[in-house]
Amino acid sequence: MNALIDHRLRRSWTEGAAGAAPLPARAARWLDQRIGPVVPGGAPAGDMPVKIPSPKLAKPAEEALAKVVGAENVLVDDPARLARATGLSYLDLLRRRSPSADFPVPDAVVLPADPDEVQAVLDACVQHDVGVVPFGGGTSVVGGVAALRGEKTSVIALDLVRLDALVSVDAESRIAVLQAGVRGPEAERLLAGHGLTLGHVPQSFERATIGGFAATRSAGQASSGYGRFEDMVTGVRLATPRGPWKLGVAPASAAGPDLRQLAIGSEGTLGVITEVALRVRPAPPVRRYEGYALPGWAAGAEAVRDLAQHHALADVTRLSDVDETEVSLALNAGLKTAALRRYLAARGVRRPCFLIVGWEGTAHDVALRRRETARRLKASGAVRVGKALGESWRHGRFAGPRQRDTLLDMGVCVETLETAAYWSNVDELRDDVRAALTASLGRSIVMCHISHAYETGASLYFTVLTARDETDSVGQWQRAKAAACEAIAGLGTISHHHAVGVDHAPYLSAEIGSLGVEVLRAAKSTVDPTGILNPGKLV
Amino acid sequence: MNALIDHRLRRSWTEGAAGAAPLPARAARWLDQRIGPVVPGGAPAGDMPVKIPSPKLAKPAEEALAKVVGAENVLVDDPARLARATGLSYLDLLRRRSPSADFPVPDAVVLPADPDEVQAVLDACVQHDVGVVPFGGGTSVVGGVAALRGEKTSVIALDLVRLDALVSVDAESRIAVLQAGVRGPEAERLLAGHGLTLGHVPQSFERATIGGFAATRSAGQASSGYGRFEDMVTGVRLATPRGPWKLGVAPASAAGPDLRQLAIGSEGTLGVITEVALRVRPAPPVRRYEGYALPGWAAGAEAVRDLAQHHALADVTRLSDVDETEVSLALNAGLKTAALRRYLAARGVRRPCFLIVGWEGTAHDVALRRRETARRLKASGAVRVGKALGESWRHGRFAGPRQRDTLLDMGVCVETLETAAYWSNVDELRDDVRAALTASLGRSIVMCHISHAYETGASLYFTVLTARDETDSVGQWQRAKAAACEAIAGLGTISHHHAVGVDHAPYLSAEIGSLGVEVLRAAKSTVDPTGILNPGKLV
Repeated sequence: MNALIDHRLRRSWTEGAAGAAPLPARAARWLDQRIGPVVPGGAPAGDMPVKIPSPKLAKPAEEALAKVVGAENVLVDDPARLARATGLSYLDLLRRRSPSADFPVPDAVVLPADPDEVQAVLDACVQHDVGVVPFGGGTSVVGGVAALRGEKTSVIALDLVRLDALVSVDAESRIAVLQAGVRGPEAERLLAGHGLTLGHVPQSFERATIGGFAATRSAGQASSGYGRFEDMVTGVRLATPRGPWKLGVAPASAAGPDLRQLAIGSEGTLGVITEVALRVRPAPPVRRYEGYALPGWAAGAEAVRDLAQHHALADVTRLSDVDETEVSLALNAGLKTAALRRYLAARGVRRPCFLIVGWEGTAHDVALRRRETARRLKASGAVRVGKALGESWRHGRFAGPRQRDTLLDMGVCVETLETAAYWSNVDELRDDVRAALTASLGRSIVMCHISHAYETGASLYFTVLTARDETDSVGQWQRAKAAACEAIAGLGTISHHHAVGVDHAPYLSAEIGSLGVEVLRAAKSTVDPTGILNPGKLV
Repeated sequence: MNALIDHRLRRSWTEGAAGAAPLPARAARWLDQRIGPVVPGGAPAGDMPVKIPSPKLAKPAEEALAKVVGAENVLVDDPARLARATGLSYLDLLRRRSPSADFPVPDAVVLPADPDEVQAVLDACVQHDVGVVPFGGGTSVVGGVAALRGEKTSVIALDLVRLDALVSVDAESRIAVLQAGVRGPEAERLLAGHGLTLGHVPQSFERATIGGFAATRSAGQASSGYGRFEDMVTGVRLATPRGPWKLGVAPASAAGPDLRQLAIGSEGTLGVITEVALRVRPAPPVRRYEGYALPGWAAGAEAVRDLAQHHALADVTRLSDVDETEVSLALNAGLKTAALRRYLAARGVRRPCFLIVGWEGTAHDVALRRRETARRLKASGAVRVGKALGESWRHGRFAGPRQRDTLLDMGVCVETLETAAYWSNVDELRDDVRAALTASLGRSIVMCHISHAYETGASLYFTVLTARDETDSVGQWQRAKAAACEAIAGLGTISHHHAVGVDHAPYLSAEIGSLGVEVLRAAKSTVDPTGILNPGKLV
């Protein structure tokens, strides 16, 4: 069967968001100098024909599903199936541009209305032995939503988009229950009606969902203040092939192991998360973001460590390395770059690392905490750059993913990867990953930042740009990614907030032991004895 | 065989600690009025003969164990076995006084020297099908260390007392690795050598161990500042029947579910914790404790909630209800009670609830945080009582368990139980548990306090005193405890920090679902296929 991979699918990040982010001409020139030649203007290819296999869902299965959710909520048309075929990693984007025979496409898209319907869908899928890929925002960059069928003849994408409700608010306990399909902005809009906020703003915020955040142990840009997503979760409700499962009756417990922490991060393999009870906070009347510059990476990382270990982190605390800072300086039209360079040089900062700090809360709280952070930063040799840098970062903070299609059009290979380590490993880990990427890719730009800091360590987030090798574009990145993962293993975690999916599964046993993988498999066999849930992911 | 249950065993809490805590005469008089008649002077019974079964450990097993740890570290004498027979719940203390036929006694006590020997002991126990009860401080109050043998013919107590080392300190990452057998005071002493502290001070501090804290999800009195024990754990090393298992490579991770949180709270059923990597902090140069009084429980709980939800909790934040406060006022010789009552009444506080707040850190930090706490407490209607109350609590904070033997000698039934709930359930839960206990016990004193507060809820800790029913002293408490547990189920967790053990196991599936229990069993079958680990506990 032929279908069109249309513009919407190819450039799907921009769907429903604030629009694509084109690259300024100066950025294109700069890229050309650094990793060129690149195609300066870029040009999105038009719609293109693609062969996708016919749906393999057996008629009785399709009828059983239709009986649960209504025939209009079982989609078997090609555009619907293609749109839930993969996530949004660089390799996913490449595959969308040139789908090969193994491009995974679900046999149907099923749209349940509520947790009970999710349960009934799973029951039907158990009965008809159909694989189920839970699908939220579809923003996985590790293959977490690829429509793999494993041993199953057919697989559905279980799209949770209709689970879009704020179920309840317990203002006294500061807990809100949100359904799994609620996206970031909608969650904030719903909570704002009660004067509340969740404060979870990962870069995928515009599209990703509450269920996805929980399933992947997401961490948002304000994690220093609001915590990682798992810190916000007080309870989860799942549908499993063995029936409903609800966890979380108190803020903390010693009633055996914390099984919430087993459900969180289970990536759809231990059940479909249908509702999440979340700690919420009053919507902050004041938001203040500003920028500092530190003299080099070592000084910058030390300053962030000092803040983390003295409980003086701002809610957003994000340190760019020299390379990432140079890119900001080269590309950011909003900064008077030359003047800023002179200003910093006069204060002894010749190779600056930008530090973004942002506080949210009451005026009293922000003032109090900002004073402490500023006091410590000054002692660490940081030079204040001012509000413009902070606000500039805040306004552009979701733009990264939206620029990727443009960069791909220009012939650029662009991808990110991330890890976290204890402080004593952070510098070595950064060096090793950079070296591994550069050795694999040759001429390239490798930037790094810390965006999540803890008393005992920090995350490291790498952005990589290089000219795409058109003869082997997939292999080019696969080799670089493998080299980076090898460098990470032993020094840090294979993922701080992107999850495991397909891409990191080979590295999981090095991190949690083969016994750990066996324990996860045993948990999965218990709740999903016939293995219908998200085949081929995590374990 | 006959053995003597000697003084040391009967009153074993006091062993190695700061000595028994006798009750002042005034306290005895007061108890007599409230729940009497009680035996005023009390009188510890002398040593008493007791029949305990001969060790059932087969010769080949004993030889295999002796080969691992040396014959001198396989103890089969009665005093050694009796000392590791049970924990220290009220029912355990009763059973120690009048051991019945089903008093559980291990067949041997094995004392490995290090994690490798622990592994080798487990290997030998798998080979000879011997049950293993990991034994740390022996302070479980839920039957967690009872030497039950389950299906096994013989069972050993695996005493970790020789795993007493500080393995490593990573000052930069603020992580210290401690062996499982290190007791609270020794942990602090070892860390103090590096200018560090753990800050974990549960009431069992004097005897309980690092491994036990991890195995039971312990929470210390300063949990508002230092966190619960699981918040401190960055990594765990376990010995399991399937081999060694190590978890924790980074401060946070999205590499699947957090299996550390499965190991923590596993109560010896998923492996023997041999080492724990812990987040540590600089030893605080300043410690400041003081007391406030709030006008009644509702106002007190509101004030604590206000602090928790505004990130203004002191490191120690502990609110007594009116009954507990009355007991303090009646018994505490250090306070000028009548004058204090007048002082409070003049400020509108006629039914006071004492609030202890304590900060630890640098002078700057303590001053800054104390100002915020005080500001909010004032707005909540709290009246400052001063340093004496805080210091008095601090100095007596480990005395409770040490007074139990004295109270038992006096014919008093004394026990504690605890739970936690979301704020909107806290008051109802307290009322229901009090009502259940009082209905079951009749004339009694039931006190309650909040000692651990979170943004979304708080713990509730109950202390119960009643005249012991000598005709059915075990049944008297079992019925009261069951009534309290029934009241808890549905409103809170069956344990906030005492764990599950034997006593709470019947209530676990109501909390985590039968699916949750099955998942735990599946995890156990994976790491412990022949079921040697801590038979009869948790699941």
